[in-house]
Amino acid sequence: MIRNGLNKCLQNKLFNNKLFYSSQAKPSRDSSYAIINNDDIEHFKTILDTHSILTDPSDIDGFNQDWMRKYKGNSNLVLKPKTTDQVSKILKYCNDKKIAVVPQGGNTGMVGGSVPVHDEIILSLSNMNKIEKFDPVTGVVVCQAGTVLETIENYLTPMGYTVPLDLGAKGSCQIGGNVSTNAGGIRLLRYGSLHGNVLGVEAVLADGTILDCLSTLRKDNTGYDLKQLFIGSEGTLGIVTKVSMITPPKPTSVNVGLFACQDFNQVKTVLSRAKSQLGDILSAFEFMDRPCIDLVLKHQQVQDPFQEKSPFYILLETSGFNETHDSEKLNNFLESIMAENLIIDGSLATDSKNISAFWKFRESITESLGKEGAVYKYDLSLPIEQFYSIVELMRAKFDDKANVVGFGHVGDGNLHLNISTPKKPYSKEIFDMIEPFVYEYTSEHRGSISAEHGVGLMKPDFLHYSKSNNSINLMKSIKNTMDPNNILNPYKVLPTK
Amino acid sequence: MIRNGLNKCLQNKLFNNKLFYSSQAKPSRDSSYAIINNDDIEHFKTILDTHSILTDPSDIDGFNQDWMRKYKGNSNLVLKPKTTDQVSKILKYCNDKKIAVVPQGGNTGMVGGSVPVHDEIILSLSNMNKIEKFDPVTGVVVCQAGTVLETIENYLTPMGYTVPLDLGAKGSCQIGGNVSTNAGGIRLLRYGSLHGNVLGVEAVLADGTILDCLSTLRKDNTGYDLKQLFIGSEGTLGIVTKVSMITPPKPTSVNVGLFACQDFNQVKTVLSRAKSQLGDILSAFEFMDRPCIDLVLKHQQVQDPFQEKSPFYILLETSGFNETHDSEKLNNFLESIMAENLIIDGSLATDSKNISAFWKFRESITESLGKEGAVYKYDLSLPIEQFYSIVELMRAKFDDKANVVGFGHVGDGNLHLNISTPKKPYSKEIFDMIEPFVYEYTSEHRGSISAEHGVGLMKPDFLHYSKSNNSINLMKSIKNTMDPNNILNPYKVLPTK
Repeated sequence: MIRNGLNKCLQNKLFNNKLFYSSQAKPSRDSSYAIINNDDIEHFKTILDTHSILTDPSDIDGFNQDWMRKYKGNSNLVLKPKTTDQVSKILKYCNDKKIAVVPQGGNTGMVGGSVPVHDEIILSLSNMNKIEKFDPVTGVVVCQAGTVLETIENYLTPMGYTVPLDLGAKGSCQIGGNVSTNAGGIRLLRYGSLHGNVLGVEAVLADGTILDCLSTLRKDNTGYDLKQLFIGSEGTLGIVTKVSMITPPKPTSVNVGLFACQDFNQVKTVLSRAKSQLGDILSAFEFMDRPCIDLVLKHQQVQDPFQEKSPFYILLETSGFNETHDSEKLNNFLESIMAENLIIDGSLATDSKNISAFWKFRESITESLGKEGAVYKYDLSLPIEQFYSIVELMRAKFDDKANVVGFGHVGDGNLHLNISTPKKPYSKEIFDMIEPFVYEYTSEHRGSISAEHGVGLMKPDFLHYSKSNNSINLMKSIKNTMDPNNILNPYKVLPTK
Repeated sequence: MIRNGLNKCLQNKLFNNKLFYSSQAKPSRDSSYAIINNDDIEHFKTILDTHSILTDPSDIDGFNQDWMRKYKGNSNLVLKPKTTDQVSKILKYCNDKKIAVVPQGGNTGMVGGSVPVHDEIILSLSNMNKIEKFDPVTGVVVCQAGTVLETIENYLTPMGYTVPLDLGAKGSCQIGGNVSTNAGGIRLLRYGSLHGNVLGVEAVLADGTILDCLSTLRKDNTGYDLKQLFIGSEGTLGIVTKVSMITPPKPTSVNVGLFACQDFNQVKTVLSRAKSQLGDILSAFEFMDRPCIDLVLKHQQVQDPFQEKSPFYILLETSGFNETHDSEKLNNFLESIMAENLIIDGSLATDSKNISAFWKFRESITESLGKEGAVYKYDLSLPIEQFYSIVELMRAKFDDKANVVGFGHVGDGNLHLNISTPKKPYSKEIFDMIEPFVYEYTSEHRGSISAEHGVGLMKPDFLHYSKSNNSINLMKSIKNTMDPNNILNPYKVLPTK
């Protein structure tokens, strides 16, 4: 049971909260939002069963905080609808009363987009987790928003299809969240972005209107492609309730190579060669620097991949449908890059055990970093020429004050720059050493200050480093048209200034 | 020199115009638009040089009419800007004066989207035709909107890249028009839609604001993906002035197979087999019925592909990077479908001459139809089960009154249903036999009434067959937000009712 008194008390505490989520302070609560009371809870009980309404702080705690323990809100209410109609009724009520709402999927985001900033109601999609349809001829799958990514992959595998999207959080992230954040990941190089692979969405608008754009057609040019508005807008324009997606045939032959390079120029050249020589079967081209490998060796049960240490490592994956052809292509490729002295060392894995072992180096970097202390994460798109320079610049800047590592999807120009310090909590001093320098550098080279993680609560004030004023103004117009009361995921994505 | 008197005369003629563009009559002129006068022309002379302003009816005629001679407007003015800044100044002026504008690219559309309906100013992008940048490492190309698609392909070929888009009109269609109409075409099966391949656009909004979303990054999740608004909105939300696009490595080995089938079930099964057996190298899967082949034989210098006639034909293309591997895959595929009696006859082409000969059957259908008389064109997405039924239903309906043919991108579920009669002009009687039946049938099976051609002037009144009222209302809100004076490409895309 929530009382107004308690809310006000919490709110006062909040106003004194000096938490920093970046080099900027947490935004103040917008006092025009209603504070929920008993009548509201009673109303929600007419929409949802009591098990789908969480008010006990111990139940809510996990929803208020993100997985990195960097962002923490103070919501007193979690609603877990099971149907689109329930989502619609909840939003209609919230819009009428001007109650702020944060939609939450698997809560695996990196920028604080999925947790409340203050006392927004948390609308969790976890109870909407059914795969509704699959067409084995076209490969089109239709899922409810709360379906976990890995659940979809496991469902598709026996039918010879695969999701066109793979990321470290696959075991807990949800497809609705993936779509709302335009999640990128490892397979983007091969299958492209969700803007191409999502065929339709069903979404609920701020006023409760249900928008059925759940086409399952590969081609549909009837008017504006409205579904695109919900891909990557982080729940600020509507809440995605269902997704239809084209899934590609699952490759039957997968090979992985791990290569060590002497300098970043070699990495670049190997990338060019891989694109032209492996073309249609190249499915991942990932990059890690030596400090990443050291971190993984420290925190995971793995052995150094090669006898000699090298400054740079590439993980390359091919996926195809003919084992003989694929191995031949990969062997020829390896021979040619070795002959040209483009790598110092290299090893190929063709069976699933060795493939997993190779992938472990790449996939456990984030987890290993998490064990170090506070991690300052930056997800940048940069031209290949500047891709690694920023890591070196930051390393020089921090000297031995912090551990600076660089890894990422070099095939897509996407660098994950991570800076870790042994001490928690996050420190404004460290933030100030990183920001706005990292953003200025990125902007100067016409990169993106958020390649795949989104804007969330972390980056609205930095949006101008990647977007023009005219673009930001148009975003604000669209937001204002679609959510005039600004109830959907407030304080996020768009700068308030 | 244009005089008001002349304009009024033209306009009166227009109001008596009973031309039918579908089973619906041409919409009346909206009298709230200004009629251009001498002062306007004088103002445009301060923005453009005189060669870029066409007012002579004989110069304008080709811009007023579409290539099928189905749609004809009555514009008195064509403007041909050379820079984005000029486009911006023109639109700012038109917005202030409420002068309607139709943007025009290569004018190769199928639904009357690129010609004026009444006296809208024609803004031709043809003079903005430069390829501005190309990055040989990432394959990202940046072009002005008026660049012809084939020019881009010819530019990329020597550098080992290819445009991810190919269509019959490539010799005259322009990339800005392709993006504005979300053009599909033959390679969509392999490379996906422009929503995935276009990385950025520069567009000019109705009020002259220049929107720079010309990112060249593969990944950029900083706020709403505004460029998507311009992809497929047919120039009603802004005029695309530049495009940046990811281009894939150009396959070095191309093979084509032409197969004959006894029934449509065989076509479906061959499609399934091709997707699983050819996977990564399958680049086109096109379908033609026998009446298509008969038309091509009648109008082109070609011979029947096989000794025996068959009711259905498949054109299948593979594109890869290893000739030996690709041939082996295609031969194995051919052997297996022949062993299963899935085709009656089949032939493979591996050299460019034979490949072109095979493609001629598919690519000259539209041109051959044009030589027949009046052609009623329908571009539908349908589930595979209904893909050919609609052709049979229409054939039964017309009996010998018209020639009904079906072809298209069956791999994407996209049927081109064409009905031709020997006599021009287009007849309301014939339209009434087709519409709304074709749209009702498509709607009933949750297909799309416009798979790749768009809505244009032909289909706004039928939009509800593929889009919900809520979707149409949201489209109208967005249009109203971005173009409140409704000056951009009026009477098109959105229903006026």
